[in-house]
Amino acid sequence: MASFIDNNFLLGTDAARNLFHNDAAGLPIIDYHCHLSPQQIAENVQFRDITQLWLVDGHSGDHYKWRAMRANGVPEEYITGGTRSAWETFEKWAETMPYAMRNPLYHWSHLELKRVFGIDKTLSPSTAREIFEECNAKLATDEYRGQALIRKFNVEAVCTTDDPADDLRWHRMIAGHPFGTKVLPAWRPDKAMAVTDPESYRTYIGKLGEAAGMEIRTYADLCDALSRRHDFFAQAGCRLSDHGLDTFHCADYTEREIEGIFAKVMNGSVPSPEETDKFCSAFLYDQAVMDAEANWAQQFHVGPIRNNDPRMFKLVGPDTGYDSINDLPVAEAGNRFFGRLASEGRLAKTILYCLNPKDNEVMVSMAYNFNDGSCPGKMQFGSGWWFLDQENGMRRQIDCLSSLGLLSRFVGMLTDSRSFISYPRHEYFRRILCDVIGSDLESGRLPESEMPRIRQMVRDISYFNAKNYFSF
Amino acid sequence: MASFIDNNFLLGTDAARNLFHNDAAGLPIIDYHCHLSPQQIAENVQFRDITQLWLVDGHSGDHYKWRAMRANGVPEEYITGGTRSAWETFEKWAETMPYAMRNPLYHWSHLELKRVFGIDKTLSPSTAREIFEECNAKLATDEYRGQALIRKFNVEAVCTTDDPADDLRWHRMIAGHPFGTKVLPAWRPDKAMAVTDPESYRTYIGKLGEAAGMEIRTYADLCDALSRRHDFFAQAGCRLSDHGLDTFHCADYTEREIEGIFAKVMNGSVPSPEETDKFCSAFLYDQAVMDAEANWAQQFHVGPIRNNDPRMFKLVGPDTGYDSINDLPVAEAGNRFFGRLASEGRLAKTILYCLNPKDNEVMVSMAYNFNDGSCPGKMQFGSGWWFLDQENGMRRQIDCLSSLGLLSRFVGMLTDSRSFISYPRHEYFRRILCDVIGSDLESGRLPESEMPRIRQMVRDISYFNAKNYFSF
Amino acid sequence: MASFIDNNFLLGTDAARNLFHNDAAGLPIIDYHCHLSPQQIAENVQFRDITQLWLVDGHSGDHYKWRAMRANGVPEEYITGGTRSAWETFEKWAETMPYAMRNPLYHWSHLELKRVFGIDKTLSPSTAREIFEECNAKLATDEYRGQALIRKFNVEAVCTTDDPADDLRWHRMIAGHPFGTKVLPAWRPDKAMAVTDPESYRTYIGKLGEAAGMEIRTYADLCDALSRRHDFFAQAGCRLSDHGLDTFHCADYTEREIEGIFAKVMNGSVPSPEETDKFCSAFLYDQAVMDAEANWAQQFHVGPIRNNDPRMFKLVGPDTGYDSINDLPVAEAGNRFFGRLASEGRLAKTILYCLNPKDNEVMVSMAYNFNDGSCPGKMQFGSGWWFLDQENGMRRQIDCLSSLGLLSRFVGMLTDSRSFISYPRHEYFRRILCDVIGSDLESGRLPESEMPRIRQMVRDISYFNAKNYFSF
Repeated sequence: MASFIDNNFLLGTDAARNLFHNDAAGLPIIDYHCHLSPQQIAENVQFRDITQLWLVDGHSGDHYKWRAMRANGVPEEYITGGTRSAWETFEKWAETMPYAMRNPLYHWSHLELKRVFGIDKTLSPSTAREIFEECNAKLATDEYRGQALIRKFNVEAVCTTDDPADDLRWHRMIAGHPFGTKVLPAWRPDKAMAVTDPESYRTYIGKLGEAAGMEIRTYADLCDALSRRHDFFAQAGCRLSDHGLDTFHCADYTEREIEGIFAKVMNGSVPSPEETDKFCSAFLYDQAVMDAEANWAQQFHVGPIRNNDPRMFKLVGPDTGYDSINDLPVAEAGNRFFGRLASEGRLAKTILYCLNPKDNEVMVSMAYNFNDGSCPGKMQFGSGWWFLDQENGMRRQIDCLSSLGLLSRFVGMLTDSRSFISYPRHEYFRRILCDVIGSDLESGRLPESEMPRIRQMVRDISYFNAKNYFSF
Repeated sequence: MASFIDNNFLLGTDAARNLFHNDAAGLPIIDYHCHLSPQQIAENVQFRDITQLWLVDGHSGDHYKWRAMRANGVPEEYITGGTRSAWETFEKWAETMPYAMRNPLYHWSHLELKRVFGIDKTLSPSTAREIFEECNAKLATDEYRGQALIRKFNVEAVCTTDDPADDLRWHRMIAGHPFGTKVLPAWRPDKAMAVTDPESYRTYIGKLGEAAGMEIRTYADLCDALSRRHDFFAQAGCRLSDHGLDTFHCADYTEREIEGIFAKVMNGSVPSPEETDKFCSAFLYDQAVMDAEANWAQQFHVGPIRNNDPRMFKLVGPDTGYDSINDLPVAEAGNRFFGRLASEGRLAKTILYCLNPKDNEVMVSMAYNFNDGSCPGKMQFGSGWWFLDQENGMRRQIDCLSSLGLLSRFVGMLTDSRSFISYPRHEYFRRILCDVIGSDLESGRLPESEMPRIRQMVRDISYFNAKNYFSF
Repeated sequence: MASFIDNNFLLGTDAARNLFHNDAAGLPIIDYHCHLSPQQIAENVQFRDITQLWLVDGHSGDHYKWRAMRANGVPEEYITGGTRSAWETFEKWAETMPYAMRNPLYHWSHLELKRVFGIDKTLSPSTAREIFEECNAKLATDEYRGQALIRKFNVEAVCTTDDPADDLRWHRMIAGHPFGTKVLPAWRPDKAMAVTDPESYRTYIGKLGEAAGMEIRTYADLCDALSRRHDFFAQAGCRLSDHGLDTFHCADYTEREIEGIFAKVMNGSVPSPEETDKFCSAFLYDQAVMDAEANWAQQFHVGPIRNNDPRMFKLVGPDTGYDSINDLPVAEAGNRFFGRLASEGRLAKTILYCLNPKDNEVMVSMAYNFNDGSCPGKMQFGSGWWFLDQENGMRRQIDCLSSLGLLSRFVGMLTDSRSFISYPRHEYFRRILCDVIGSDLESGRLPESEMPRIRQMVRDISYFNAKNYFSF
């Protein structure tokens, strides 16, 4: 019986072990999509304790853990309640931990204990106190401040997720005081498309106008303001955008219709579903054109249904563990959207992520309609996202991409995380990748005679593809 | 080469074997959802022969076997025709058997021969006659009457599936003559929601009114009558409800609209799809509130499309093998529905089952939106149902639940069966569960150091979770 | 470590090896659905070079390879451009090859090099030139002309895919000069249903009328003309039809409505989506009745979304690598459609194929609603199609069919190919089939005592089921 998370964790064959240890393990990390707080990086955050780091940080509460705790019967006062001590909250998490066996949290958390804190024990009520204290003692040292944590994992570059109205001052501050890891902004203009809540929208448009140094009175103004901010982001080193979507949008529309919808929303009326679809269609198209012109890569994260408990949404806000997987169709609108851009020669490098695994095959086959020979892997199917960011999800993503596309051109893993210590997920992904390829080698599905190329494939997916694709 | 269904059937590792034999195998069964006939239990049914028991019982014809026989080219006269002898029908099934290899029927049937009748032969034309006779001889003894068959499998409790208009007299009779297994009713009010067939609906409403001792003239009356019956079921020990749905329903509606639709249907008009959606939305909400107030658990079985051959429906009626898997979306209406209940504090313990495996991930992620810390595993993703009640379906259910939720809190297996001898499916499930966990142990995905907790997880999922969740 | 594509390729157990080598490998091939050019067969085509055969033949350009090349960054001029030499195009493919590892093209291409050309090298830039020359030298010999290539693989029968307006002269020519493989037409009337492009439709209807020797002025005329052609195809040995669908259609309609839509389209107007749905519903029903009356088998290929890059569609036309997987619902319309036919006793033998694997379970469960005992396996779930024609897709098809239906009655593999050398896919499929069954044997999921029946199952699925089902 193998030890838990030992040196050959997830590596089921000699070939897999060989590939992982010789080719994958040592490479730097390019974490091209995450939700780290630029402020915390800039200020080189020091965490009070493991509870803050893991569970209830104002910037980075881990809603995966929250969901698990709620499902395990832990009352909300220990989770987002803010009335319990760091120890009490941590204790509840430690009680939940043994019940999370087979959930990715069980692997993530123990990988983090091992790789970040050097702790080999499994977390449970009987080890909770000593782990709590050992982690907290370490977190009090300089070696465990934000920047050191990032450096510890040989992270070459990090892309945060930023609003167009953001002034990027934290990014500038980091650039002014380099610590060895490039920290770049990424463009996430979701709020500028969120017309279904007119009141918040209007407020946001005001803020965006201020940031762009202009008044936004029309949709054309909006595009103009976004274009200025897009330039501003580009100057700060931004090389990619990101959109969070329920599904794709590619309705027919006229400029006049879009101006009408924009005016209506700014006047406080909720647009109809058809109007919202038209608006999103126009908005996403105009954004995609900006990305193509700036030679950025664009990302589409498609498929959540959010804030499903209205009461908890009012109490604790968005991103608190009440989101799940939606099941809207994606193929027709998506293909129309990218087909329009491709036909016009305005399609940027693109990465598609889906939250519903039923969409895996649609996504790869759609993406590969628009690879046009202009560069390898121009349009990609991205790594397992959110609920799919676990062994089963990763294997399905790798198999689906392999079967319908070119695995070798895959830009690979990202953390998508709010946490400073989620980098072991890159290791986890690399292990799974090597296991898949190693198993094919052992069974004669891949030729041992091509080992140099196979090694290169592993190295490319682990690091070099992302490096070349994004050219940060 | 392993023998067919030997002692270590489905158990691929030493760890799996250890867990199954030491922890899972010996525990009692709680079969919290099935379709056994309370009358047959109460009357302690004696089966004429294996053909009645397996194939053509008036209460429990096995439409899985019927589908397989039809697909194998067996004419209907041998199946539902009623014109062939027990032997002739059995012979056709025995001819079909070898063609059912890799279908779950091949495992179910042989497990039943082994565990119920102690027969180790494989069924085929060459063994048909001797197996027929051996089974029939045994069925003629007291040891093979209905109650003894249930006792043979150490079944602690059984929940049948009952209509609100049912007088539960068979349940009372069983309670008055206990035989060692608790037999409780479960509440399945589908007919009270089936407004698309006004004629049958009106007849049913009359029957329900009689049962409730009142006249039902309005939708408010309907709720009142159901509430009385709900209380009556509760007094008979009922602890859970069940709904069979095409998909979820959560349209906006007003009381007045619902009263209008009810009146329209009672007057013989077929409601429009929008009206049906509204009616179902109201009905399911009101039912859910009843369940929450009674502190029952509620089950939702979502996704079949039924009676797809209109001619055969007229000839042989519903539940005869002409149902299949539908592909409607489930996420938006489902999340709205449970979100409304959760926000109002009216969400009962809930188990979601889907018939289309494309919905697995949606179902788990939706269920886990509404775990609120009030008890462990409050909202669950249920075991593989109907077409998914086979090795592949169970493994996917276990993996999906593990990856997105807490496997350890799973209430586990049920038979959902009309048959007195389908209990080996619990064994089958437990073997697969142990195989999954054992394989994780062997590969270092789970820590051997946590064996006591892992053993407890296996025991919980096999038995204790259901015991605690339902508190029968 | 196993050698690449060795004798026991894909065969993970002794039982699998035994089954494959003793039972499956030696059987003839019945390729009941492909897109070979009857003209090329009749003319006993000689290929100029491997580039023509593999990459850019006028009849059979391989859009799978084109998609891979575009995704690998190969400019279009090397692909469909027609401006590059055979060597230059081949060289680009050879450069792409190592990047296609884990894609089915990597296995297909190397299997073809081995089995057709006896070349054991892996294709890459360093072997490109010698492989190019060796293949070309062989292709210049008589042993490598079209008919010899087919004979090499022991192909007993081939069904091409033909338009009702086709005069079938190439089929007659082949029949007049038999070469050992039966070459039969198959009926694919997609163009007669393609009303959304009125201009092309009108042109096509003219052509069809000519072929049928009548003027087509009404929908009734259309049915009449198709019926004449159906008879003509039957006389030429045709035994099966095929429909390419986005999804099923089964709207309510009247004859009058359909005549109105036909007239509208013939007058140059684009029908509304509702009208198109009605028209397709009528058309498919009338076609299905023709098939039932002629005692043909009918095939439905459901689920692509085509020609998604409008610019490339104009430049290089359909079937050039811009098609992908759609995600429309299929269950309701499909069940209504087949339910109508079954109820009327007009349901022909039927094979369903889906392009989106989310539909696998729906397709099997739908198909099995309509097996009526009239013959074994009357309604089938077909083998992995197009994007799903790879190891992962085949395994899922086999597992899904096994779990929900009767694998043993499966008519098995087909190439669906435009190429003369894609027959190794039958070998590939048989290996996977034997691996699946062998693994079940080794683990005790299937009884060794039933080896004769298991051998027969392998032989049936490899060859005899298709032979009996189609009776060519």
